[in-house]
Amino acid sequence: MVKIAILGLGVVGGGVADIIADNCKLIEAQVGQPVELKYILDIRDFTGHPLEKLVVRDIDTILADDEVSIVIEAMGGAHPAYDFSLKALQAGKNVVTSNKLVVAEFGAELLEVAKEKGVRYLFEASVGGGIPIIRPMLESLAGNDICEVCGILNGTTNYILTRMKRGGITFDAALKEAQDAGYAERDPSADVDGIDSCRKICILAGLAFGILPAPETVSAKGIRSVTLRDLADAEAAGCSLKLVGRACSSDEGKTISVAPCFVKGTNPLAGIEDVYNGILVRGNALGDVMFYGMGAGKLPTASAVVSDIIDIARGGSMTAHWTAAPEGSFTDGEDAVSEYCIRLPRKLDQAAIKEADGEYTYIVEVAGSMLAKNYPDVIAAYKMI
Amino acid sequence: MVKIAILGLGVVGGGVADIIADNCKLIEAQVGQPVELKYILDIRDFTGHPLEKLVVRDIDTILADDEVSIVIEAMGGAHPAYDFSLKALQAGKNVVTSNKLVVAEFGAELLEVAKEKGVRYLFEASVGGGIPIIRPMLESLAGNDICEVCGILNGTTNYILTRMKRGGITFDAALKEAQDAGYAERDPSADVDGIDSCRKICILAGLAFGILPAPETVSAKGIRSVTLRDLADAEAAGCSLKLVGRACSSDEGKTISVAPCFVKGTNPLAGIEDVYNGILVRGNALGDVMFYGMGAGKLPTASAVVSDIIDIARGGSMTAHWTAAPEGSFTDGEDAVSEYCIRLPRKLDQAAIKEADGEYTYIVEVAGSMLAKNYPDVIAAYKMI
Repeated sequence: MVKIAILGLGVVGGGVADIIADNCKLIEAQVGQPVELKYILDIRDFTGHPLEKLVVRDIDTILADDEVSIVIEAMGGAHPAYDFSLKALQAGKNVVTSNKLVVAEFGAELLEVAKEKGVRYLFEASVGGGIPIIRPMLESLAGNDICEVCGILNGTTNYILTRMKRGGITFDAALKEAQDAGYAERDPSADVDGIDSCRKICILAGLAFGILPAPETVSAKGIRSVTLRDLADAEAAGCSLKLVGRACSSDEGKTISVAPCFVKGTNPLAGIEDVYNGILVRGNALGDVMFYGMGAGKLPTASAVVSDIIDIARGGSMTAHWTAAPEGSFTDGEDAVSEYCIRLPRKLDQAAIKEADGEYTYIVEVAGSMLAKNYPDVIAAYKMI
Repeated sequence: MVKIAILGLGVVGGGVADIIADNCKLIEAQVGQPVELKYILDIRDFTGHPLEKLVVRDIDTILADDEVSIVIEAMGGAHPAYDFSLKALQAGKNVVTSNKLVVAEFGAELLEVAKEKGVRYLFEASVGGGIPIIRPMLESLAGNDICEVCGILNGTTNYILTRMKRGGITFDAALKEAQDAGYAERDPSADVDGIDSCRKICILAGLAFGILPAPETVSAKGIRSVTLRDLADAEAAGCSLKLVGRACSSDEGKTISVAPCFVKGTNPLAGIEDVYNGILVRGNALGDVMFYGMGAGKLPTASAVVSDIIDIARGGSMTAHWTAAPEGSFTDGEDAVSEYCIRLPRKLDQAAIKEADGEYTYIVEVAGSMLAKNYPDVIAAYKMI
């Protein structure tokens, strides 16, 4: 019998409890023994809730119980999620989380503690919701030298951009729709300012290259300034405007960035719409593979948590190996030389791909770091990938 | 030191040898010890080849060498690939293969022998080339009740259909292009008649539902009869014509089929073109996830083989659990009630989605098994998914 505790009975924690209840026979068949939920840590009142008897208020109750071998951190936020994860690992318990903030900020330390204690710290649900991505990167792509990982990592912003394009509505109107549909928070900053995507691309870069960049060192742009004209320019260039997190490695070094980009129609990320996520991994042997699915949501995310629980209960041993990236390991991917689609209030000596309202859109090859110098009157500029 | 033997230094076997040589440091870091190629079994003459010294002619040399813990079967065909795989497992060696024919025909027996001998039989490369699909289905989707697995599983036919559509050329002309480009064999039957896709959907059904259907019991249609008019009808219906392998499970039972289908534009499989493959998995908790990439090719396929080698060398334990499906476990998915797009030489009492040259295309809801009875003059019929 494998006994687990869930920290936080919110959306993800509740989903994990549901899946363990609904799919218990299937899970027992996979694991070879039953998996039982023993505790839920939550400070709210669950009087009358079917799981009321499992609720405890003190993390020490869980830490002191030797029967509990797996702790699910589904609290969200940095504290006390990080602190409780650390304590659980130090107490010799495996920890599973969907908390990308904690993984991106403290993942190097927590993996190190897990290694010392001979337990595991797994976070399949931290990127891409239910999409299997962490484990495939560690296992299936293990024989590859990965040169790029790149994705649409945030469903809320992808929904907003899809609604703007299809409905011809502004960012503000599309954001309101996303909030009304429950896809965006009342304070949407983590999504629309690229903060969530930034945490996720840091985790993916850590898996791909073995060094985990600190999110605060990464240049992350969001989508607040995206206009309908920008979307029309993208279409004129045969592209889709998407918020993309991207990390690359070559002989020239490593780059990382989060920014709205013009994704070319030939790139499989271009067709990913609504709340879906897609993650493209480029390896030296396998070429491009892409993973696609619902990037968020109660059951998809909880499904990924449960896959980690099953992996631990089966006695698996796969683990991420990374260290905190030394300062300067990554440069800003937006600074590199690339094709950019730029819009100017004047004509250049080349054919514009679109002109309207006195504004002219061109495709130019330029170092991103030189954009403002070369085109001081630039109205909009998007890297083309 | 992990020592391996490769049976057959063809495209895949050669690719495995290349990756092990090119990525040896990376692989050693992943495994914790070096992985060394000790033998190559091949009856051809390799005089002057850089790996000449490793070539042996007799499988018993490999079976008798206790240093060899992993045997890579990359011979193709049923015999002696099956026989050598069986002998290797019986000799207590782990076996890794890319041979979908052997996995689909003999996989239940070989997995059983592996289990008895305490070794592993892995076949990540048998479906989807380099796309991670076998391991994600076993691990990442483990907590899900999978209700459907469905995919574009053959790159050659997808290339032919893409060329027909884009180039406005016939099947025969597109097949010739595919042969000239090296994507199709001189005898293209295994690809264009759906035999290859059939083996792959059997393997995926085995993983999804725990019972492995015998390929010869599955109704498999190919793409030889697809016409440009069919492709135009698909477009008029907002669909893409694709060769799809599909296995479903519901309260009514399990179905399996391989057939050209009209894939609706909202289905993420619709946009998969050229030699790419895509596999869609639908689980009760996670919803839809799709895996996309090059479905064939030397290095992508070899990359999947190497991921299995690394998994074994690391001491992993994941394995498929399936038994041979009892007769009648699956019915023909093409027989079920579904939307069909049909073309007739006469008008029906509803609006046609396309009419030209005295032929009328309609969308109707009908049991596939009743199509010929209800529409005895049907010219073409494609299930819509």
